[in-house]
Amino acid sequence: MASEKQAPTGAAQPQSSAFSLPFLYRLFFLLIEPISALVGAYYAYFDKQTYLSLTTHSASAPHTPAIPLGTSIVLSQLANLYLFFALNEALVLRSTSDIRVWKTVLFCLLIGDIGHLYSVRELGINIYWSPTAWNAIDWGNIGFVYLGAAMRFTGFQVLGPDTWTEFHKNEFQPKPFGDYDVDIKIECCGVCGSDVHTISGGWGEQKFPLAVGHEIVGTALRVGPKVTLIKPGQRVGVGAQSYSCLNCRQCKNDNETYCRQQLDTYGAVWPDTGIVSQGGYSSHIRTHEHWVFPIPETLPSTTAAPMLCAGLTAYSPLVRNGCGPGRKVGIVGLGGIGHLGLLFAKALGAEVYVISRTHSKEADALKMGADGFLATSDPNWNEEHVMTFDLIINTANSFEGWDVDAYLSLLDVHGKWVSVGLPEGEEGIKVRNQTFLKNGCFFGSSHLGSRKETLEMLQLAADKGIRTWVEEVKISEGNLKGVMEKMKGSGPRYRFCLTGYEEAFGA
Amino acid sequence: MASEKQAPTGAAQPQSSAFSLPFLYRLFFLLIEPISALVGAYYAYFDKQTYLSLTTHSASAPHTPAIPLGTSIVLSQLANLYLFFALNEALVLRSTSDIRVWKTVLFCLLIGDIGHLYSVRELGINIYWSPTAWNAIDWGNIGFVYLGAAMRFTGFQVLGPDTWTEFHKNEFQPKPFGDYDVDIKIECCGVCGSDVHTISGGWGEQKFPLAVGHEIVGTALRVGPKVTLIKPGQRVGVGAQSYSCLNCRQCKNDNETYCRQQLDTYGAVWPDTGIVSQGGYSSHIRTHEHWVFPIPETLPSTTAAPMLCAGLTAYSPLVRNGCGPGRKVGIVGLGGIGHLGLLFAKALGAEVYVISRTHSKEADALKMGADGFLATSDPNWNEEHVMTFDLIINTANSFEGWDVDAYLSLLDVHGKWVSVGLPEGEEGIKVRNQTFLKNGCFFGSSHLGSRKETLEMLQLAADKGIRTWVEEVKISEGNLKGVMEKMKGSGPRYRFCLTGYEEAFGA
Repeated sequence: MASEKQAPTGAAQPQSSAFSLPFLYRLFFLLIEPISALVGAYYAYFDKQTYLSLTTHSASAPHTPAIPLGTSIVLSQLANLYLFFALNEALVLRSTSDIRVWKTVLFCLLIGDIGHLYSVRELGINIYWSPTAWNAIDWGNIGFVYLGAAMRFTGFQVLGPDTWTEFHKNEFQPKPFGDYDVDIKIECCGVCGSDVHTISGGWGEQKFPLAVGHEIVGTALRVGPKVTLIKPGQRVGVGAQSYSCLNCRQCKNDNETYCRQQLDTYGAVWPDTGIVSQGGYSSHIRTHEHWVFPIPETLPSTTAAPMLCAGLTAYSPLVRNGCGPGRKVGIVGLGGIGHLGLLFAKALGAEVYVISRTHSKEADALKMGADGFLATSDPNWNEEHVMTFDLIINTANSFEGWDVDAYLSLLDVHGKWVSVGLPEGEEGIKVRNQTFLKNGCFFGSSHLGSRKETLEMLQLAADKGIRTWVEEVKISEGNLKGVMEKMKGSGPRYRFCLTGYEEAFGA
Repeated sequence: MASEKQAPTGAAQPQSSAFSLPFLYRLFFLLIEPISALVGAYYAYFDKQTYLSLTTHSASAPHTPAIPLGTSIVLSQLANLYLFFALNEALVLRSTSDIRVWKTVLFCLLIGDIGHLYSVRELGINIYWSPTAWNAIDWGNIGFVYLGAAMRFTGFQVLGPDTWTEFHKNEFQPKPFGDYDVDIKIECCGVCGSDVHTISGGWGEQKFPLAVGHEIVGTALRVGPKVTLIKPGQRVGVGAQSYSCLNCRQCKNDNETYCRQQLDTYGAVWPDTGIVSQGGYSSHIRTHEHWVFPIPETLPSTTAAPMLCAGLTAYSPLVRNGCGPGRKVGIVGLGGIGHLGLLFAKALGAEVYVISRTHSKEADALKMGADGFLATSDPNWNEEHVMTFDLIINTANSFEGWDVDAYLSLLDVHGKWVSVGLPEGEEGIKVRNQTFLKNGCFFGSSHLGSRKETLEMLQLAADKGIRTWVEEVKISEGNLKGVMEKMKGSGPRYRFCLTGYEEAFGA
């Protein structure tokens, strides 16, 4: 699938560390929008009649009355402000590439755009969502403003690890809209452990301000001219990866997640532009179609969202390592990834055991379909199962108190231990060749999965009626703070999913 | 193959840590041999005529002359000593289970047996190897003594890690001769790194005195009544494993090397008897037929011997992980295992690179057929090969200066790193889940291989004319000391093989 498509622009070029404004941004804000404002100024001043008739949809009226003086003056003033708008935008933005100045100006422009939209309210509110009824000036008033507004994405950003539970509703620049890109209006987003690791500094330095979130479901608003996989209006999802070269051997073998140029959905620096990718705690996201996945109709959005990172993270190593009927699979840790791992492993037909520190989640595990539950706090907890597991997916986020030998003893000959959690800092475990000797087992990690696997996983979830265990939380500064604190504590049972995006960001 | 056969006696029973004498030993030395000596005493005293005629093969002579008095007296004295022999053996050995006393008594008995054999020399030396011509008393004089002598194996043993380069030519008890056992007269034996790790204390406590060596080639002398895989007189080999239950799932899946009851060829405590297994720095070895491998005719013994541990250790993970045409395989470390890994990987059709610290062995590697050579002391040594290897066999014996990330970066997606060296002590490396993330690679170890793989490997070596690079050394206390010192130093190029067993132990 990947091999048929062209790579995103600039794929093969080294990343620029210097900040530079994206071409499409410059084109829109420095040229197109100022010119369109000048056009408005021209008509408002030099051709008031046309301007008025177009504005009021009265072009076909038989008699055109003279324009009252007051109206004429108002139109002149309007023209003047259009001119100001155009000059301000074209000149101020040209004077600097300082991202802070740009953000400030664009924020003002956004207010102007919203006021502009408000000004046509007397035509009836249907005017806002009936593009088929728009005439030329409506396209300028509404459609064009929508487009501009879409370029001023808003998200709940964190400013740095010291204040990582404080979220600020900021606008940000998306990457330039490419031929293969899809703009998505976000409906909900799962809260992944990665989000916490990233903003709290646990994974080292990050690029702030940053809106995290990479378990995104929403609606495709518009698609680039070469997009074939997604249609506007479709309900779609975005996971933790948003870029790879799509040209290398890995990409062509459904291993795009192991492409050397792979980029994360948030916190990555886009090639060429230097723009830092922003995640799903935001109003919108713009992503190459390869990483945009149609959501099967029967799958609720909040069920699907956590599958796009947590689910795929478990699903890919399961299917790549033979999970299926006749196989005995272990899931270490029953959290967001773990519970989806359990659900998918069962759906794939394996015998599945959950391995946890205590029995506290045993009842839930059995409700989810686990065939057994091992608590490592029990004496000789592993003895009965030594050399019986074909595959163990380790979702634990810490090596604390971790007896590697006891765990690995569970594996059958050449069985595999696949870690998918990424503990913070430099913490690790010491292994010796002897560690793996008794059963010739393998120890490894797995990173996400392919587009192909994502689509298969979503279809499996739809077919088998798999439901993520979700705690829904309305997105807001306050709730995000609370969610983050719980994530550092006992966590949800078993995934937080942020909702209420329309309330937070507008319809 | 394994599944058809009965497990060795006592397979399912827990190992006894207390020393106890093996049943067959007790049967032979406490009962059978004393009684046979008493039988000799009876005839020598009460039926001199029969004794003499049988001894001289003159039973069919027409006239039996009277026995001269001197002869009669001599026969009485002989009978008396037979009686002494029987009582001494039966009573002294019954008085203790102290292994030292047993060894001393058995040593005396061995001298007695040799003298007994010598006494019939006047019948012509053909008598010693013509069992078809033996009458009843010859069986007692020769065959029976051979059997007894076979139970008093001799080997070059080390007494402890403090004196690990000092070898002592000692007798030792083999395990009881079982229905599936094969007694082998050793012709040569490779010197494995394991030998050094074991006797020098690098692998922790061991059971001394100990004769090491587990790359053994020799001749099958006798086989147990249920042996079907080996015939007496056949040239055979024994590797590093000599026991497993042959009943469990692992054993039935050609994974007997991962059987939980697997025992090493030397230094292991045999179930039931408590006897410590002794290796190939010895005159003989007794092993269950499952771990005795016929050597293809065209394969020289000193080429075959090192394959039985070093060769198999490399061969098994190669074939189990898809080594073959179109695959790129790395061999880390060009030593005994490494050079056989290179030779086998090439024979299997892969593209093979040797990875070593310096370029010192590059010329040899290329002579052996390597497609390339990477020296980790070169700057950016790995860059050109990142994510291109399907499999890397790590034969290195130390983690010193080991950059795990640089090595693992060589692996393609889900490529495998298989360590087969076993560094000493608690040394290990710290790994994080992130270590394996970029390519989803796997890290593991491999232990030896199956009987099936051993036979395939030997046949491949015979078919392709593979030759181990061997430095032959005559076995002796002095040479063993020298070999051990070299093993701790730069080592051989690329395997020491001990020869000259007939000179050391007799024909």
